[in-house]
Amino acid sequence: MPNPATSPAQPLAGVRIVEISSFVAAPLAGMTLAQLGADVIRIDPIGGAADYHRWPLTDDGASIYWTGLNKGKRSVTADLRAPAGQLLVTRLITGAGILLTNAAGRDWLDYDTLAATRPDLIHLEILGRADGSAAVDYTVNAATGFPLVTGPADHEGPINHVLPAWDLLCGVHAALAVTAAVRHRDATGQGSRITLALEDVALATVGNLGFLTEAALCGRQRPRSGNAIYGQYGQHFTSADGVSFMVVALTPRHFRDLTELTGSTAAVEALATALTADFTDEGTRYRHRDVLTGLFTPWFRDRPAQEIGTALAKTSVLWERYRSFDELAIDPRITANPLFTLLQQPQIGEYLAPGSPISVNGAHIPARPAPRLGEHTESVLRDRLGLSPESIAALHMSSIVANGAPARTER
Amino acid sequence: MPNPATSPAQPLAGVRIVEISSFVAAPLAGMTLAQLGADVIRIDPIGGAADYHRWPLTDDGASIYWTGLNKGKRSVTADLRAPAGQLLVTRLITGAGILLTNAAGRDWLDYDTLAATRPDLIHLEILGRADGSAAVDYTVNAATGFPLVTGPADHEGPINHVLPAWDLLCGVHAALAVTAAVRHRDATGQGSRITLALEDVALATVGNLGFLTEAALCGRQRPRSGNAIYGQYGQHFTSADGVSFMVVALTPRHFRDLTELTGSTAAVEALATALTADFTDEGTRYRHRDVLTGLFTPWFRDRPAQEIGTALAKTSVLWERYRSFDELAIDPRITANPLFTLLQQPQIGEYLAPGSPISVNGAHIPARPAPRLGEHTESVLRDRLGLSPESIAALHMSSIVANGAPARTER
Repeated sequence: MPNPATSPAQPLAGVRIVEISSFVAAPLAGMTLAQLGADVIRIDPIGGAADYHRWPLTDDGASIYWTGLNKGKRSVTADLRAPAGQLLVTRLITGAGILLTNAAGRDWLDYDTLAATRPDLIHLEILGRADGSAAVDYTVNAATGFPLVTGPADHEGPINHVLPAWDLLCGVHAALAVTAAVRHRDATGQGSRITLALEDVALATVGNLGFLTEAALCGRQRPRSGNAIYGQYGQHFTSADGVSFMVVALTPRHFRDLTELTGSTAAVEALATALTADFTDEGTRYRHRDVLTGLFTPWFRDRPAQEIGTALAKTSVLWERYRSFDELAIDPRITANPLFTLLQQPQIGEYLAPGSPISVNGAHIPARPAPRLGEHTESVLRDRLGLSPESIAALHMSSIVANGAPARTER
Repeated sequence: MPNPATSPAQPLAGVRIVEISSFVAAPLAGMTLAQLGADVIRIDPIGGAADYHRWPLTDDGASIYWTGLNKGKRSVTADLRAPAGQLLVTRLITGAGILLTNAAGRDWLDYDTLAATRPDLIHLEILGRADGSAAVDYTVNAATGFPLVTGPADHEGPINHVLPAWDLLCGVHAALAVTAAVRHRDATGQGSRITLALEDVALATVGNLGFLTEAALCGRQRPRSGNAIYGQYGQHFTSADGVSFMVVALTPRHFRDLTELTGSTAAVEALATALTADFTDEGTRYRHRDVLTGLFTPWFRDRPAQEIGTALAKTSVLWERYRSFDELAIDPRITANPLFTLLQQPQIGEYLAPGSPISVNGAHIPARPAPRLGEHTESVLRDRLGLSPESIAALHMSSIVANGAPARTER
């Protein structure tokens, strides 16, 4: 039953989702679906789930992390261990028709249990590994191969990513899987039981990018090669005043512009002749990257960053100045970007927050604040389950539900 | 018009997409949509787009990269600069109703041009930056802040990621945006004009994860801290035989198990008393990470990897052994994983290829081979445009279309 209230910018209008989640992947999935117009209710244990105090924190101890990944949702808190709390949550899930969760191993949240009441349920469970065992981004990443080829060529030992890339990819994949399942349900009335393992997202990616195939078919091991781009020419350079730039030449035109800019054209031509190297070929540029980098380095080393940026901007070369998080936070690409709007975030303050990166018909959906924990407990019980004020008060009295500030911390 | 042929595992059955793309984000979006049941035709210039020779290559020079990111699509090649070629492609796009592209700045592919013929068109354009200027994963990443906090605390200079995380995230976001727009079109008959900038995907992510908020509101700069997990306890350790392990203790139970395993319980208790530190608090474990790591290190250093893995497996601690790509390629998590099936890939060979990481009703959609470049030119012109064999032959003769092996390389 497609909902006529959908709009290009709110294509998931009318979709109701209950999320029982923590950390990055599942909360990001829910937030992404909410940005597309879905009504997402995150349900937490009273006092918050394991991510409620996750760093970074404000000076007052509120989690910037939690609010950042739960924008635009409603929040309900209930005692998820008490049968009465589980019954309420079950009714919210079967009423909504979609459960998004990474809370594995709870029988009362199983697909079979819930689908007995709601046969067209869409049930998406995010797991660490497909066998149900626990794994997190940092452990999954260790097995992918990437940490052993990240960083300077002479470094020994693993270098982890700081960006939790697998969690993020898993979260957007989960949002995609729910959206596709909604289309199927709209068309046929059928639900779906979906699982998505964080480890499988990572392994599929390593496979799709050819790292496994290269190792299996060619017996080649990708070398650790610093900031060089495999099979292409790309490298970082540092200015006279200590600012680093990433510089990439994907095409012969980019490369020609780079040699002209750095006054290396004659030297590159001489090299090409002496080495019988065709630098219009991307692989050749990669093979000879060290000597090319050596040729280009003095031009960067001899100039201040300002002059380098101005000169690069006049060429076709792909480039960027490395920035720290605090430089980026005040850069026009944030402060003058319509993706970011000023958000009044309870517990955190006023800050520029990103909406959806997806721009529809020329506009982004702006960010909406994250809820306070338990902020919507009463309104949801009233509006979704039709409970009377007296019933809700009784649930509060017996600590089956809560709202407002955390009463205790569950870990 | 929802298609009754959809199934839980093929929720996008009946969705027709034309993709004009190169590199990672747009091809991954198309492949992801094809895995969900969409019919995806990738159209390339004769001889292939800029990514057709991208590394890694087989010993015969075929691109493992290209085949890895174009599985399950059909391939048409045409002269995209000739008006006759543009006309054919325009007819394929308006017939399909969805264009997915990262080929910016071509008037004949504009939304307005195409929607004049097909008003309910879904048009998704991936850009480098929102203003239309060029950017790639490696340059976008330089501005995000991550390279300056990646790697050992004493390292100076940027350390890039090897995983093109922004491209990947952008690609899955694009697949999500198309799928959501299909739902809206199913419900209302309206199309959508969607843009997605690689840079905006990255900036939204940095914002959602709290890095910008932390810098803007608290004036704090995240330190470079090696493989430690910010705000938690996580670190890598190396065994007597030189194998590294990532070890993470997110909860008090994980941490208690880790101290018991390493025989550090009494020492950790003494430290807690002496430092007035409550190690049940995740932030406290992070603040004191160096002394904790110092306490745990000898247990790992004194044992072979085999013994460490066996012992860790008996605890609740989250852990993983670091693996290289070639170790991973022969690991049971690939070779015994139903996500991977043996694929006969023309030009590449037989290898274990990943299907969709999304498992629906207990099964993955297996991988299908990537097409040979131009493999489906004739069948698509015949079946989609109703062209006669004579017309198709004439198009071949005048080099407006091609099939089979590349005739020339366009760069």
